Amino acid sequence: MTPMQHAEAALAADAAHADAAIWIHRQPDAAILDRARTLEAEGPRGRPLWGIPFVVKDNIDVAGVPTTAGCPGYAYTPAVDAPAVRRLLEAGALFIGKTNLDQFATGLVGTRSPYGVPRNVFDPELVPGGSSSGSACAVAAGIVRFALGTDTAGSGRVPAAFGGIVGLKPTVGSISATGLVPACRSVDTISVFARSVDEALAVQRVIAGFDGQDPYARRPPYPHLRRSAALPAPRVAMADVAPLCEPAVAAAYRQACGFLNAAPIDISLFLESARLLYEGPWVAERTAALRDVLGRRPDVLHPTTRTILESGLDRRTVDAFDAFHTLRQARREAEHLFARHDALLLPTAPFCPSLAEVVADPLGPNRRLGTFTNFANLCDMAGYAVPIGFAPDGTPVGGMLLGPAWSEGRLAPLADALHRRFAATVGATGHPLPPPPPPDTLAADETALFCIG
Amino acid sequence: MTPMQHAEAALAADAAHADAAIWIHRQPDAAILDRARTLEAEGPRGRPLWGIPFVVKDNIDVAGVPTTAGCPGYAYTPAVDAPAVRRLLEAGALFIGKTNLDQFATGLVGTRSPYGVPRNVFDPELVPGGSSSGSACAVAAGIVRFALGTDTAGSGRVPAAFGGIVGLKPTVGSISATGLVPACRSVDTISVFARSVDEALAVQRVIAGFDGQDPYARRPPYPHLRRSAALPAPRVAMADVAPLCEPAVAAAYRQACGFLNAAPIDISLFLESARLLYEGPWVAERTAALRDVLGRRPDVLHPTTRTILESGLDRRTVDAFDAFHTLRQARREAEHLFARHDALLLPTAPFCPSLAEVVADPLGPNRRLGTFTNFANLCDMAGYAVPIGFAPDGTPVGGMLLGPAWSEGRLAPLADALHRRFAATVGATGHPLPPPPPPDTLAADETALFCIG
Repeated sequence: MTPMQHAEAALAADAAHADAAIWIHRQPDAAILDRARTLEAEGPRGRPLWGIPFVVKDNIDVAGVPTTAGCPGYAYTPAVDAPAVRRLLEAGALFIGKTNLDQFATGLVGTRSPYGVPRNVFDPELVPGGSSSGSACAVAAGIVRFALGTDTAGSGRVPAAFGGIVGLKPTVGSISATGLVPACRSVDTISVFARSVDEALAVQRVIAGFDGQDPYARRPPYPHLRRSAALPAPRVAMADVAPLCEPAVAAAYRQACGFLNAAPIDISLFLESARLLYEGPWVAERTAALRDVLGRRPDVLHPTTRTILESGLDRRTVDAFDAFHTLRQARREAEHLFARHDALLLPTAPFCPSLAEVVADPLGPNRRLGTFTNFANLCDMAGYAVPIGFAPDGTPVGGMLLGPAWSEGRLAPLADALHRRFAATVGATGHPLPPPPPPDTLAADETALFCIG
Repeated sequence: MTPMQHAEAALAADAAHADAAIWIHRQPDAAILDRARTLEAEGPRGRPLWGIPFVVKDNIDVAGVPTTAGCPGYAYTPAVDAPAVRRLLEAGALFIGKTNLDQFATGLVGTRSPYGVPRNVFDPELVPGGSSSGSACAVAAGIVRFALGTDTAGSGRVPAAFGGIVGLKPTVGSISATGLVPACRSVDTISVFARSVDEALAVQRVIAGFDGQDPYARRPPYPHLRRSAALPAPRVAMADVAPLCEPAVAAAYRQACGFLNAAPIDISLFLESARLLYEGPWVAERTAALRDVLGRRPDVLHPTTRTILESGLDRRTVDAFDAFHTLRQARREAEHLFARHDALLLPTAPFCPSLAEVVADPLGPNRRLGTFTNFANLCDMAGYAVPIGFAPDGTPVGGMLLGPAWSEGRLAPLADALHRRFAATVGATGHPLPPPPPPDTLAADETALFCIG
């Protein structure tokens, strides 16, 4: 497809899907078509994302477009692109718009926004998942090929699960957080939604890179974004999650575990760390990032967001250090785990709540949604959320493969195999998954060439 | 010297020095001589510290001996040695006793203890420095060859400066903190006092090692305790510290900077981080470690320690995260610094207060003492404190060479050269420094042999 064809397809899909709540800002049709025409005239020039449409979660800066973080009263218009966005544009990608989110990326439901609630692509009575609700829906509805989200507690994975697409949660610090509205600065990362594991990884390859201006940036110890050859006998860990999940989720998870020959381990220390994110000190990190808004203009906040941010005000540092020490222990536990296993397979979310459930209880279902996702960044893991089937009532179920920091390339073949085993189409589009990457092994009529220098 | 000769020399030196305040527990003479006799009968058996007398700061466990941390009401008797102590005993070292400290290692003066104040070996009217007061004095008085201390804010460096000896502040996490009473767990390290840089490094070589039971333990990325060859043209950074120091300290520091050809840099972000240790969240980490004592038996605490620990109770986590972000920036600044410089040279302490000053103001002079030391662990640095001369009135002045984590071996030749340039004798003993290690280059009649395998 050419850039113009991509642009026209994106506009058509958006019109057909007709969900205004995906967008906080959509580029005008004319601007999209103009840009596509320019790209087409220029030709690819070796750009890996030439003409590919994408959207950006509205807590990431795009020059000249307001950044709202889901809070109109907070909005500002940045003069420069976030480095991740700049790299995408330089790679030839076609910017379509900024997407809706749980305000300040605080939530996993996708309903905490004054810009409406993006529609779950499978069932309008279910939540879309958040906080990157609009970005995930834009991919799941086939409007764009990929989207930038963010992931602190699971915002880049839960909405992937509820949209039947892939969510790549990169290693914290691998992508610059400059130009990103902070949630919990120490554990925030930009994330990628895409149609397949390898397309997500290809996007991370474009946007990743050390940024000396970002105090939480880290240098990769090796080329972590190269897809590894498939492991001959992957050692995958699983957990007894049935008591924490809806039966249909537990059933799909069992099937996924069977497919990957997973062996049971104890994850109680990770589950304990997960609770620390909102019930421990890190909620105060959110409060710290927004204390000016909270102090001076609390009325501009979504009521639920305000409740959460206020809960961070009274926490005591003396308790925080207990949590930091617990987390340190959990990180050590993760080291032990990944010394013995290539990956940990978990359900992405224990259930998918309905909109009505969340209206009735704005905090409870949301908290439960983070059961399996909250600890990944705290414990310095990377991973993929991929669809692993549907409940009998059609609710999508997601599985999550986690590895240590910098394992994106190593996990890719495993995550891709899992994805392709349990999903044939992208989100709710009915379109088949993009073709798998070329096989690791040579065909009978091929010859290996090694080039040095 | 044989173990028996070492033992007799230690007992004689202790008797001659006659400072009971060095000790919280001293092994009985008979026990020391018995152990020395056994060691002597066994022969060295390749043990690198065969018969060498040492002492242990009384916040580190020695099996069967009470650990008080300077607080009798807190004391317990451990059944097992801290790994660092176990390794020393296995290396043949001769345990002499447990030493006095600022209670719970909270202080840099050496006066906050119910066990008295160890006498400054140069001037009885000056503080000995702390918190590892007894350990530093035992080396400075020639009772033992080396001592274990600890260093969170500067406890392993300030008393080295005030005793005219070497204080090695290892990389946090390089030595197991199991069996160590926590001050600020995330930035505590066991430290070494010795007569020379290379003797200190040799001790660290014995006690260092990864401990999976210690959640803050780290694996060295390379053999960091091997003394490097001297750098042909070391690039040393210095700072304009005159406004922060007594004139005599500034003068000695200028001389040291001249000797190392140091070039000026801006250290304001490090100085800001330094203030965070007691004026920021980390004081609450101390409180967290001792909240049971503070809550149930506050009367067992030294009044000054109690005041400090109580100041950690009311700190808010929302403010802590601001400090964590500032620190992260300072760590990045340290990376930049050590990309351009081999080491940062600073005064160890800006002045040496008198006992009377500290009685008059228990908090102020102590706070000022940490000006240059407080940030090292927070910013993940390693380094050496070495004597760099005396003020005209005989007050000892110390210099500190700091490098990044895991730079102990790389800094050693530089720190040793600095030490030998400005000091001829060990502490107040009048004994010459131990001989320098063999030269890096070959003598005319030597041949290089490279053994592989």
